[in-house]
Amino acid sequence: MASNFKIAVDAMGGDNSPLKVIDGIELHSKNSNDIFYNIYGDIDIIEKLISKKKIEPSRYKLIHTKDKIEGEDSALSAAKRGKNTSMWLAIESVKKKESDAIISAGNTGALFVLAKLNLEMIQNIDKPALSGLWPNKKGLNVVLDLGANIDCNEKNLVDFSIMGSALHKALFPNETSKVALLNIGSEELKGNNIIKNTYQTLNNRKNNLYEFHGYIEGNYIMDGNVNVIVTDGFSGNIALKTAEGTANFITSELKKALSSTLMGKISSLMNIKNLSNFKKKLDPRIYNGAILLGLNSPVIKSHGSTDFIGFYNSLKVCEKIIKGGLIEKIKENIN
Amino acid sequence: MASNFKIAVDAMGGDNSPLKVIDGIELHSKNSNDIFYNIYGDIDIIEKLISKKKIEPSRYKLIHTKDKIEGEDSALSAAKRGKNTSMWLAIESVKKKESDAIISAGNTGALFVLAKLNLEMIQNIDKPALSGLWPNKKGLNVVLDLGANIDCNEKNLVDFSIMGSALHKALFPNETSKVALLNIGSEELKGNNIIKNTYQTLNNRKNNLYEFHGYIEGNYIMDGNVNVIVTDGFSGNIALKTAEGTANFITSELKKALSSTLMGKISSLMNIKNLSNFKKKLDPRIYNGAILLGLNSPVIKSHGSTDFIGFYNSLKVCEKIIKGGLIEKIKENIN
Repeated sequence: MASNFKIAVDAMGGDNSPLKVIDGIELHSKNSNDIFYNIYGDIDIIEKLISKKKIEPSRYKLIHTKDKIEGEDSALSAAKRGKNTSMWLAIESVKKKESDAIISAGNTGALFVLAKLNLEMIQNIDKPALSGLWPNKKGLNVVLDLGANIDCNEKNLVDFSIMGSALHKALFPNETSKVALLNIGSEELKGNNIIKNTYQTLNNRKNNLYEFHGYIEGNYIMDGNVNVIVTDGFSGNIALKTAEGTANFITSELKKALSSTLMGKISSLMNIKNLSNFKKKLDPRIYNGAILLGLNSPVIKSHGSTDFIGFYNSLKVCEKIIKGGLIEKIKENIN
Repeated sequence: MASNFKIAVDAMGGDNSPLKVIDGIELHSKNSNDIFYNIYGDIDIIEKLISKKKIEPSRYKLIHTKDKIEGEDSALSAAKRGKNTSMWLAIESVKKKESDAIISAGNTGALFVLAKLNLEMIQNIDKPALSGLWPNKKGLNVVLDLGANIDCNEKNLVDFSIMGSALHKALFPNETSKVALLNIGSEELKGNNIIKNTYQTLNNRKNNLYEFHGYIEGNYIMDGNVNVIVTDGFSGNIALKTAEGTANFITSELKKALSSTLMGKISSLMNIKNLSNFKKKLDPRIYNGAILLGLNSPVIKSHGSTDFIGFYNSLKVCEKIIKGGLIEKIKENIN
């Protein structure tokens, strides 16, 4: 069967690439039979790896280049000298409509600059936003912007609400998308003028894409009562990183506590199944990566440090975004 | 022995007051023998409670008022009609130099408005900041501003660095105060202009109070490599609340995981000592409350929902602040 949907994969970015990328593709191709992979990178290395994997040759194409963006490259140097890199070529593939989405585990700054350089914005959207998935008690939140735009005006935040809801809808078609604005209080009077004006606009705006649920404070983000959290890139980045730091702190303290005595070690062993369920729920590989929204094609960033499971999960996000018609949903609702 | 240091206590604010306040004072008076308590509130209720406690009569004075600020009072109505409330009278007591610090577990907004209304600012400080204590891997951070000022300029952030370090030094006299600016990257180029300018000023500023350690991202707040985190009130509030929400999410998921099977329950029981050490480390009562800095007297807010242990810990903070000469330290360093 010919694949209807095509993903452009930068195989060379991130730690342990291209191995983890190829392993991720293998796992994804087993679980999803109508995706085709345009794989960009060093064919000498990739062919050796891929020959040992069980990926149907009809499911992929290798496009060779020796060049790649390095982790240390500045966005500027990537833009200047990046033309023949695997990342650039993968982005060009969506530009030329040869692929439906681009995924990379490489240099984040470079990926977004090259994407913005090569791809057009969706009409009527001024700024692209970086969105991510974040666990809550009932499932997953879409949170944006996570750091692409330090300063945002009212129009940007309204756009983010639409783009975030469209992403949520593409990922979770059976759920109602519920938008809330991140703020430092739940009363209408709180916050700066930009937030207050955005509140009024969202409150008065008619749409079929999402419900508007007002303000949300940081301590309720993970409660699951709303699932699309909208904020400027500065606050969003602070919230995301602080949540990460808090999770690391607690799990490291817990580890210390559970292994501090022999009794602790024994009972933790007895309890290993439950604790592993707990770990699974918090496994960052599930929420791996980020999605740049606002360009004419979806750009998916997988964490540089993730493994093939993480990369596989990002490929699943790609697939859902393509099949869920994310870009069309944004275009329909932006005007 | 006559007490050298006096704390003005609003006995009527917060849940289960005045009981928890009196219990907190009892515990504190046992552990600290040179503090005198000026206690403001309804003498009919307080006298009945205090007669059953072991607090030396020479250690306190009751100042009667029937009026109190309610949790639902707006800051405006508190300012308008609050004159005879326990909170107002307690604040007046520091204004008149009858006490060295004021503590309340009541309405936060009202407390800060009444304090700002009655107390003078420290000369050369434009905005008071709300600071709190936050656990890290090596001890405690001072974090400010946690929500008093949505918009802050460079001068405000520099002031916060000085006030935060002075607080840190008063609480932990044997530690080196290490200031970092909360930002969305660690490179000098990141962030908005206000943050970048503050970075330059702090980097060039000579002082004996603290070391400046540059930018910090949210995920490193709890590592303990710095201990005074400076930010505007919007970002600080988002960070604080998000950390709270994340901690709640993880501990509730952990609880579910540990009790989901019989085996889990048994092994958790075996491990109860270790888990209770873990809980103790994360006990919010240790970090309870917030300190309003920038006024001529220290204003300490204990959480409304905390119990007498939490109130006791806030009294300890009061004591350290008074004995550590917090206000003098700020004045010496602000010019």
